[in-house]
Amino acid sequence: MKAVGIVVEYNPFHNGHAYQVEQAKKETGADVVICVMSGNFLQRGEPAIVSKWTRAEMALAGGCDLVFELPFSFATSQADIFAKGAISILEATLCQYLSFGSEQGNIQPFLSTYHGLQKHEIEYNQLLKHYSKEGYSYPKAASLAFQQLQLAIDEEIVDLTKPNNILGFQYIKAIKQQNAKMEPTTIARKNAEFHDEDFNASTIASATSIRKKIFSQEQNIEETFKYMPRTSYDALHSYYKKYGVLHHWERYWPMLQYRLLSSSPAQLREIYEVEEGIEFRLIEASKTSTSFQSFMEAVKTKRYTWTRIQRICLYILIHVSKQSMSHIEEAEYLRLLGMSSKGRVYLNQHKGEFKLPLISKVSEKNRESLALDLKATRIYALAANSPQQQQLLKLDFSQPPIIYDKR
Amino acid sequence: MKAVGIVVEYNPFHNGHAYQVEQAKKETGADVVICVMSGNFLQRGEPAIVSKWTRAEMALAGGCDLVFELPFSFATSQADIFAKGAISILEATLCQYLSFGSEQGNIQPFLSTYHGLQKHEIEYNQLLKHYSKEGYSYPKAASLAFQQLQLAIDEEIVDLTKPNNILGFQYIKAIKQQNAKMEPTTIARKNAEFHDEDFNASTIASATSIRKKIFSQEQNIEETFKYMPRTSYDALHSYYKKYGVLHHWERYWPMLQYRLLSSSPAQLREIYEVEEGIEFRLIEASKTSTSFQSFMEAVKTKRYTWTRIQRICLYILIHVSKQSMSHIEEAEYLRLLGMSSKGRVYLNQHKGEFKLPLISKVSEKNRESLALDLKATRIYALAANSPQQQQLLKLDFSQPPIIYDKR
Repeated sequence: MKAVGIVVEYNPFHNGHAYQVEQAKKETGADVVICVMSGNFLQRGEPAIVSKWTRAEMALAGGCDLVFELPFSFATSQADIFAKGAISILEATLCQYLSFGSEQGNIQPFLSTYHGLQKHEIEYNQLLKHYSKEGYSYPKAASLAFQQLQLAIDEEIVDLTKPNNILGFQYIKAIKQQNAKMEPTTIARKNAEFHDEDFNASTIASATSIRKKIFSQEQNIEETFKYMPRTSYDALHSYYKKYGVLHHWERYWPMLQYRLLSSSPAQLREIYEVEEGIEFRLIEASKTSTSFQSFMEAVKTKRYTWTRIQRICLYILIHVSKQSMSHIEEAEYLRLLGMSSKGRVYLNQHKGEFKLPLISKVSEKNRESLALDLKATRIYALAANSPQQQQLLKLDFSQPPIIYDKR
Repeated sequence: MKAVGIVVEYNPFHNGHAYQVEQAKKETGADVVICVMSGNFLQRGEPAIVSKWTRAEMALAGGCDLVFELPFSFATSQADIFAKGAISILEATLCQYLSFGSEQGNIQPFLSTYHGLQKHEIEYNQLLKHYSKEGYSYPKAASLAFQQLQLAIDEEIVDLTKPNNILGFQYIKAIKQQNAKMEPTTIARKNAEFHDEDFNASTIASATSIRKKIFSQEQNIEETFKYMPRTSYDALHSYYKKYGVLHHWERYWPMLQYRLLSSSPAQLREIYEVEEGIEFRLIEASKTSTSFQSFMEAVKTKRYTWTRIQRICLYILIHVSKQSMSHIEEAEYLRLLGMSSKGRVYLNQHKGEFKLPLISKVSEKNRESLALDLKATRIYALAANSPQQQQLLKLDFSQPPIIYDKR
């Protein structure tokens, strides 16, 4: 059986995602789709709207066959670490292909970009340092360095000043660096201009705009109906009904504020990514802010992107020390969240060859390596009120991998 | 001018307290009453119902002339440390008398108890160790050791198995150990059997029972009217009106729970008083408890008194390390919370001779030594909702000592 791997957040799973899953299979001729999905917290440093279990369910209903959790340490990190973790999991599960979405849908420019930058590495790093010193944020400095450098590369390359291209580029880089055997491919993203019988402008919306709709109008889930597969919409609805909450940062604001107001600057400096004196800004802003939104606005500067600050806040909330995040290169386990019947067949055929230990249940043996994921889940649960909170709290222990065979 | 010192919590100030202030002055012939009062958190490891500023106001309206804050490190500690801090402040402000409440109202038995125990110190410590080893809580073991020992002492002594006598005894001990010059005296406590024109059974109730009334019936403050001086009642009422909250542990439960669920056992062991593996019990109970009350009930064992656990919870909430609480012997500053016009005269006459630095305003210079008190205030404020929370948060900086001259 041949597998294609995809890297996803599904926050939540929508029609655009369903299209990607379908295309990934069609274009590669793979039998199964393996997805590595962020857990309860995401790459932009924010909580997922519903738990990883419900999002795994959406993924399976939407055409995925195996869902593995991207551990917290990768899932919430900047693009290069995120990509390293994801690729190492897909490689460990023997994916023959990696498929990711991009604007142009052509893999060659991504490969050329990688080789071009490899060739001009020293020059690139010098430029990056130069722009960083001038006070630009890391993404901005990287983008400026790239802009200057791209003139020196002959071939068609991708524009790394566009955030959408950065992850694709990092996947290629991780594949090369890890000597992974999978072949990378890319699918042109659906957007509002794209016309298709099932997926047209009126049914495609980004996850961001879906969440915006949900959170702007007092959790008006109904409004998002047409942008999601029915299964996804139902899962979102029943999560809200069951746990009484859809997760977003404001729910965690009292905890973040409490943490900031009970920590000294020195204690905050022990937290991953807290540096350059931002700890003082964070503490001061926490005294006067009345919401997460107003807090973020008070902290924001030219030097720090919104995402970077949000990620720092997440590390403070989860209490992730610099020490615990050192040496992150590749994943160390495969946490299985769910499978379709076809996924199950793949698993049974191949798990003997998997290059990392498979975890389908938390036990004394694996508890230590899962520690950070388990902690993240505990804190994620605190957004709900009792008694639903207690149900969410034990989910990592009580929930077996989801088995989906309704297709 | 002669001063009598009293040690108080005023949680809240009630008719029994007003009687004590009056008697302390009358019996010692002092011109002013200096009180050293716990800040926002109290000796039983709980938040004060209203902030230290409002309680200082109650104290001044109730007859006190100077109110100093007993720093957090003393105010929330066990009886011996609590007493050491309080006595050192009263001594530093040149009190000629200490007056405290007791059942029998006679100082001699307290002095005899101190001398008796001094004489039999080794024996007492052996007995204490013996009972502790048998698994009794510290207070219980101390009480059993005392019971056995008291037979060996000829004179009339106080019954240290009664919690009410323990503090009085510790005051005497602190006076002797610190070589303090003040003379200790004691006043018989008012209780329901005591008859008096102004203070009779129907107007005397303990602070505990007053808080019970307030918190049991959806914050029914009206019910407590007859047990408090009008000034006290009004202050309580206007605090609630202004900040929308009367403080109690349940308000801090989400923060405590979050702290427990984001800490490892090793991190909890760094907290003052966390020992003997109680960290594991605390973490486990925090996963299943839906309120502070149910959490406490889940943690409680024969070995730990309710107060001891509550105090541990407070140290975890405020994030007080073992290191920061080592070497607590005597107070290092006099934080002035308020004064009457007579108190002001006393201050002006005597402050030159005060044995500790007087702080009436937080400044860069004293910020470091006040750090723990300031942190406690920040977290205390989080019980209120925004925007009142922000007002409470800055109170330690914006509020000058209260000046009361309505008498």
